[in-house]
Amino acid sequence: MKIESDHTIHQEKRHYGWDNSLKPALTVSPGSVVTFDVPDASGGQFTPASKAGDIPGLDFSNVNPVTGPVAVEGAVPGDALKITLLGFELTDWGWTAIIPGFGLLADRFPDSFMHIWRFAPETGALAEFGPGGRVPIRPFPGTIGVAPAAPGLQEVINPRRVGGNMDTRDLTEGTILYLPVEVEGALLSIGDGHAAQGDGEVCGTAIESPFKLTVKLELEKGGAPPFPRFTTPGPVTRHIDEKGYEVTTGVGPDLMASAKAAVSAMVDLISGRYGMSAPHAYMLCSVCADLRISEIVDAPNWIVTCHFPLSVFA
Amino acid sequence: MKIESDHTIHQEKRHYGWDNSLKPALTVSPGSVVTFDVPDASGGQFTPASKAGDIPGLDFSNVNPVTGPVAVEGAVPGDALKITLLGFELTDWGWTAIIPGFGLLADRFPDSFMHIWRFAPETGALAEFGPGGRVPIRPFPGTIGVAPAAPGLQEVINPRRVGGNMDTRDLTEGTILYLPVEVEGALLSIGDGHAAQGDGEVCGTAIESPFKLTVKLELEKGGAPPFPRFTTPGPVTRHIDEKGYEVTTGVGPDLMASAKAAVSAMVDLISGRYGMSAPHAYMLCSVCADLRISEIVDAPNWIVTCHFPLSVFA
Repeated sequence: MKIESDHTIHQEKRHYGWDNSLKPALTVSPGSVVTFDVPDASGGQFTPASKAGDIPGLDFSNVNPVTGPVAVEGAVPGDALKITLLGFELTDWGWTAIIPGFGLLADRFPDSFMHIWRFAPETGALAEFGPGGRVPIRPFPGTIGVAPAAPGLQEVINPRRVGGNMDTRDLTEGTILYLPVEVEGALLSIGDGHAAQGDGEVCGTAIESPFKLTVKLELEKGGAPPFPRFTTPGPVTRHIDEKGYEVTTGVGPDLMASAKAAVSAMVDLISGRYGMSAPHAYMLCSVCADLRISEIVDAPNWIVTCHFPLSVFA
Repeated sequence: MKIESDHTIHQEKRHYGWDNSLKPALTVSPGSVVTFDVPDASGGQFTPASKAGDIPGLDFSNVNPVTGPVAVEGAVPGDALKITLLGFELTDWGWTAIIPGFGLLADRFPDSFMHIWRFAPETGALAEFGPGGRVPIRPFPGTIGVAPAAPGLQEVINPRRVGGNMDTRDLTEGTILYLPVEVEGALLSIGDGHAAQGDGEVCGTAIESPFKLTVKLELEKGGAPPFPRFTTPGPVTRHIDEKGYEVTTGVGPDLMASAKAAVSAMVDLISGRYGMSAPHAYMLCSVCADLRISEIVDAPNWIVTCHFPLSVFA
């Protein structure tokens, strides 16, 4: 889908990490519509021909490039930058990988794995996974953030108060995101295209896929939220919830340990039932299964649940 | 709704805490259908006439009674008890309270509050909350568990490997729950009727409501899961997701702190927008808003989101 836009920021206008001293690639007035040409998290190092053997050669100094920054006239600290996600222009492929040392179950999965997905965005695409698995495409930017007040170069992988690498899968078409502005002009950058992901991004990667994203930029003067907040235009799971869920749980005093237990149990259940390797089940969970906190008040034990949508194999 | 059942366990067959030496209230063969008369968490101490002033007088030695235990012939450690939730017979009221010292934001909300809900279960009930708020009824047992292997009396408030006070809102009609059996006969008990709740039960109470619950009990020999797991018969949020969500986030290295930040921000947003007190917004979040872990791999910062369904005020 091609969307009307006032400006386009091409991928060549990319930077690595956050730095509020970067010169804007573009300066716009509030109300402007801007198209970002968003690279994938490998910055083009992976292609549809990539394999697991290419993962150890990944140049980490070039991962997670973001396109921008875009300055918004009149934005000052204390404002909210209101970002309406108008629409995406997709390619027809993406990758999901297990990268050693990265991901929720890094100890259990020490080896490199790669899956290349193919999909047809013009047809309400499903991405196929082995025999019988199909994941609906629902694109969003893994990384969307404004420049932090902290001076100098700031690491890009972890998200923070001003957003950044949020990897939050409901930031999709029609959603309105409010980010707290910490520097003059806000300095918005976007990267890390994702074609689909579950809540948690448990293996550390989604369906990683470059795309073009068009957004409308407005200001809410003095409206900075304490952390990013957003409004979704409708349901967030109807693309995948039709057949219900298999749900595993982790019960205990540490939410992180319970999340790991729930995901590990789901990997075992899915790999056993559908005849795939545990690493492949782990990658599949990352792109379609959701982590929820089902109970967080019955001290000392909380419950984290992993919801795997059965429509993927229906 | 009245459902055909082989046996009924009345509320008088109640116990406080878990103890594998308790004599079964009933022994059934696998395949049996059993109706549990499930008390509310106050064990009848609260009524439709209760007010916040009654909370300090709550006798905690009588809270969270569970009905049972029911022994299942042939169940041995290592089996899974397969529990199919067939249906509920509801009353027309429930309560939600802020109980000092209890709940995710106990430090922010030190005072007692009580809300009495009214609903008409025969009409696809919505429970009204102040001017304009309506929460769909979706009942489930807050507490459902089998006896733990650990000897002696075990505390009832916290859930554990064998289930118990799971407060997991998707354990509703049609769901199949698998609990790991740790003692001969399994010894199933059920309590803590909930008419509706969000993921997390953030204020510490749901719409607390007595009901009758009918379940089918079967065994999966040798099938004990590492923690409870369940299968839902369909979508888990369609009763409430039609209008989309307001979403607040917490970003940081501690999932618990991020959950508190997300809920606290949502309380502020809801109370400000809809003109209710912060304690009332907190209670409303507990019965309808969901906690999700949207990102758990971008060290050192994870993202917990609080999803508030806009249909509640639509």
